[in-house]
Amino acid sequence: MMTIAEVAEWLNGEIEGENPNTLLILDRVAKIEEAVPGCLTFLANPKYRKYLATTEASAVLISRSLDVEEFRNRPALVFIRVDDPYVAFLHALKRMTPAVEPFSSGIHPTAVIGKNASIGQKVSLGAYTVIGDGAVIGSGTKIGHGCVIGIDTVIGSDCLIYPLVCFYQSCIAGDRVIIHSGAVIGADGFGQAPQADGTYEKIPQLGIVCIEDDVEIGANTTIDRATLGETKVCRGVKIDNLVQVAHNVVIGAHTVIAAQTGISGSAKIGAHCMIAGQVGIAGHLEIADRTVIMAQSGVAGSLKEPGKAYFGTPVNEARKTQHIYAALKMLPDAIREITALKFKITELEHKLGEKHL
Amino acid sequence: MMTIAEVAEWLNGEIEGENPNTLLILDRVAKIEEAVPGCLTFLANPKYRKYLATTEASAVLISRSLDVEEFRNRPALVFIRVDDPYVAFLHALKRMTPAVEPFSSGIHPTAVIGKNASIGQKVSLGAYTVIGDGAVIGSGTKIGHGCVIGIDTVIGSDCLIYPLVCFYQSCIAGDRVIIHSGAVIGADGFGQAPQADGTYEKIPQLGIVCIEDDVEIGANTTIDRATLGETKVCRGVKIDNLVQVAHNVVIGAHTVIAAQTGISGSAKIGAHCMIAGQVGIAGHLEIADRTVIMAQSGVAGSLKEPGKAYFGTPVNEARKTQHIYAALKMLPDAIREITALKFKITELEHKLGEKHL
Amino acid sequence: MMTIAEVAEWLNGEIEGENPNTLLILDRVAKIEEAVPGCLTFLANPKYRKYLATTEASAVLISRSLDVEEFRNRPALVFIRVDDPYVAFLHALKRMTPAVEPFSSGIHPTAVIGKNASIGQKVSLGAYTVIGDGAVIGSGTKIGHGCVIGIDTVIGSDCLIYPLVCFYQSCIAGDRVIIHSGAVIGADGFGQAPQADGTYEKIPQLGIVCIEDDVEIGANTTIDRATLGETKVCRGVKIDNLVQVAHNVVIGAHTVIAAQTGISGSAKIGAHCMIAGQVGIAGHLEIADRTVIMAQSGVAGSLKEPGKAYFGTPVNEARKTQHIYAALKMLPDAIREITALKFKITELEHKLGEKHL
Repeated sequence: MMTIAEVAEWLNGEIEGENPNTLLILDRVAKIEEAVPGCLTFLANPKYRKYLATTEASAVLISRSLDVEEFRNRPALVFIRVDDPYVAFLHALKRMTPAVEPFSSGIHPTAVIGKNASIGQKVSLGAYTVIGDGAVIGSGTKIGHGCVIGIDTVIGSDCLIYPLVCFYQSCIAGDRVIIHSGAVIGADGFGQAPQADGTYEKIPQLGIVCIEDDVEIGANTTIDRATLGETKVCRGVKIDNLVQVAHNVVIGAHTVIAAQTGISGSAKIGAHCMIAGQVGIAGHLEIADRTVIMAQSGVAGSLKEPGKAYFGTPVNEARKTQHIYAALKMLPDAIREITALKFKITELEHKLGEKHL
Repeated sequence: MMTIAEVAEWLNGEIEGENPNTLLILDRVAKIEEAVPGCLTFLANPKYRKYLATTEASAVLISRSLDVEEFRNRPALVFIRVDDPYVAFLHALKRMTPAVEPFSSGIHPTAVIGKNASIGQKVSLGAYTVIGDGAVIGSGTKIGHGCVIGIDTVIGSDCLIYPLVCFYQSCIAGDRVIIHSGAVIGADGFGQAPQADGTYEKIPQLGIVCIEDDVEIGANTTIDRATLGETKVCRGVKIDNLVQVAHNVVIGAHTVIAAQTGISGSAKIGAHCMIAGQVGIAGHLEIADRTVIMAQSGVAGSLKEPGKAYFGTPVNEARKTQHIYAALKMLPDAIREITALKFKITELEHKLGEKHL
Repeated sequence: MMTIAEVAEWLNGEIEGENPNTLLILDRVAKIEEAVPGCLTFLANPKYRKYLATTEASAVLISRSLDVEEFRNRPALVFIRVDDPYVAFLHALKRMTPAVEPFSSGIHPTAVIGKNASIGQKVSLGAYTVIGDGAVIGSGTKIGHGCVIGIDTVIGSDCLIYPLVCFYQSCIAGDRVIIHSGAVIGADGFGQAPQADGTYEKIPQLGIVCIEDDVEIGANTTIDRATLGETKVCRGVKIDNLVQVAHNVVIGAHTVIAAQTGISGSAKIGAHCMIAGQVGIAGHLEIADRTVIMAQSGVAGSLKEPGKAYFGTPVNEARKTQHIYAALKMLPDAIREITALKFKITELEHKLGEKHL
């Protein structure tokens, strides 16, 4: 616990005006509309400015330039000016909120550890978790209850694997990887070879999934193993819930992918891309670095120029799609107008014809 | 088991004509096309009327006004007239079908119960289920095999939690909540703050999920915990499978949401809404009460007028989108016609120009 | 391990030219761009032809007719001509790659087997797997760790059920069925009857799921039980990850369905259909045999003519939708042109009017 003055100093902030309350203790953080006395809050989005008049927070982080003249009449609210109120708030959030530790410590007696598996120092294994033969779990990694780590799978250090995650055999995860409950890493790719008689024969899926350092993977997301070689999720990638990553996909470093997006087999996604929710990406294509793809878009071909924004099904440059969508609203009227124009032209032709006579 | 006459009386129905079979015993219910002697069935959808000529059911629930004159020649089929045949059938279904009880009774010896956890009267815990420290399970609640209930999570009374459900720490569920297998409640919201160097820093997710009474949540659905405060699923909400509910979303009471729909962070959905499957809803917007959103729609902005129906990507009033979609079919022809009209007008201008001379 | 000559003979292939290396041993298979000495690879897609100049593979499967004259200068690379290089490669893949066996053998001592359950010969049950009372597991079936097989569920012979799969009670799976982790088979269908007061009453879901022989079901896919009767996945169907199959759906034999597609209640899908990813199919409709539905399409009505391809939302014949999508790109210009044409016509009318005077 710190006083308001201490928080301000720690965040490299400046207290607005003179305020006798700066020695009050801040004991938690909260959103501006929910804060109570003792809370630190913040104002970043101007939409929430009105709450400055009513919030019960004891201190509020604001930007260096915000005009708060009109709130002078609130002596119980201390204003702390910082460069970026939201970022400062996040720092305070991490420090001031004693989060519940969701992982139990140590190795639960019911955890099953396979033959020749290697469990590092300070590893935590939850109840009923199964570590396959030959698997490697790096030091400091915490694995929740009921997880299944396949044979020969290697997980690095300081990872957080939440309950009920499944890794199939022979996959690889780096350090500081976070995987949320229900995610399935390394299930067979969807490879089905059509036969002459109309049935399908399963194509063996013999590759692996390789997840690099600092990746986070959401709940119930599925990342399939490669047919041969590897499905690769590069360093720093962040994937939301219920995302499908098919066999042999490569996702470049520091790309973020929102919920329910699907990436088909062998697509290569660049680095630093931002892919919104419910996007569909076809197989065997390439997406350049720093590409932005807006929600629900459908990408059927490669997007080769880096740093552009795309939208729509079929996908197009975002601005063009927005023009098309704006024009779409006028389409029913336009169709009627074309009919009216045809009629008028026929009439004109007729009149002009008469004149000829 | 009841006789046809008893069923008719119990459902407040009226038997059509005189029929000596009303003392026959009905021992099960079935769909009209699959019914065998001894079955009660129903006719609600006129599409299925033809089956009145062939069904082997012993009794059929029909509406008060249905004309069945032509089926007089089927003395083995007793017609029972009721106000709403489908609703009456559902009542019979519940009473006459002895469903298998999927939950085992009592607390399985392998269930792990954490320190200071509170387990109510008549609770059922399946094999290998883990209840975290400090968690509370209300009386009469049944939790299937292999579930994980996080530390300090509170679940009310008479809930049904099917196998392999995961609740993260500190979440809340009310009474009579039903959660299907594979659902993940309370995983971290997708909060990633972009850094100057193009990487992302995880924003701590310190809030909770609060699920009110009488909510049902489908298989493999994910409901993320709030960054701060709570993600809230209000009383009576029904959510289908594979739905994504992001951090800080609020879903109003008695709203239904079909499969694979995704709701982005901080969206506020009204009460009594009907949201169809594969809909995408952007973050930080509001949807009014009683809004209907049709399948695969994409909602990018607030929908503020209650009780209206919407459709399309981008979403628009349903009728307008249907006009646009109808017009779309004419678009390729319209483009050709515009070219033809341009040509004709140039010709007219030319002719008129000649006349001027 | 076989020599190149032996592999060629086994695959009914023909070695190109004379090559002293045919007695070298092939010890693994690899993609052409990743192969090292000792590898067998293949060339099927002309896009990869360039790799023939650089691959380090010892042998490559090519088609009978491919011209490789320009690669004569690579004596270390043996060309084997076969009818279908990819199919031949798949055969070699299966034979030459000693895949890790992901299932443990025998019945793990922690597996819980319910009363009157029947476990066939050579069944494998993983750690912490629970088999419900009265369930039947056929001979040779392997069930991974942490699975839950509901009461009275019947699973055939030689199935592979990966870890953390849940079958609800009373479902049926045939022989050689493969189900990936996190799939939920037999959860309640989404049946909620609206009440006069705006709340919903749950409709009991008393039917089952029936999965026929040789079906494969992807990770985290959900297949709901029928209200009455059965949800049916016919012989040889292949379903990818995160697919939703609602209550009372029927999927005809040898149909393939890609990831994140959703099929609403009571839809009847024909046999030998190909349904791409993220498709939405409305309820109570019929789709004819051999129908192809392209990615992200939305199907709101029956598609009754067999063997046709469809695309778009709302779905239309694929060629028509492609015309519409091409025309859409011209729409903003077309709207502007209509305005220009209106202006010109008004001008013409005016001029013609003047002439009248």
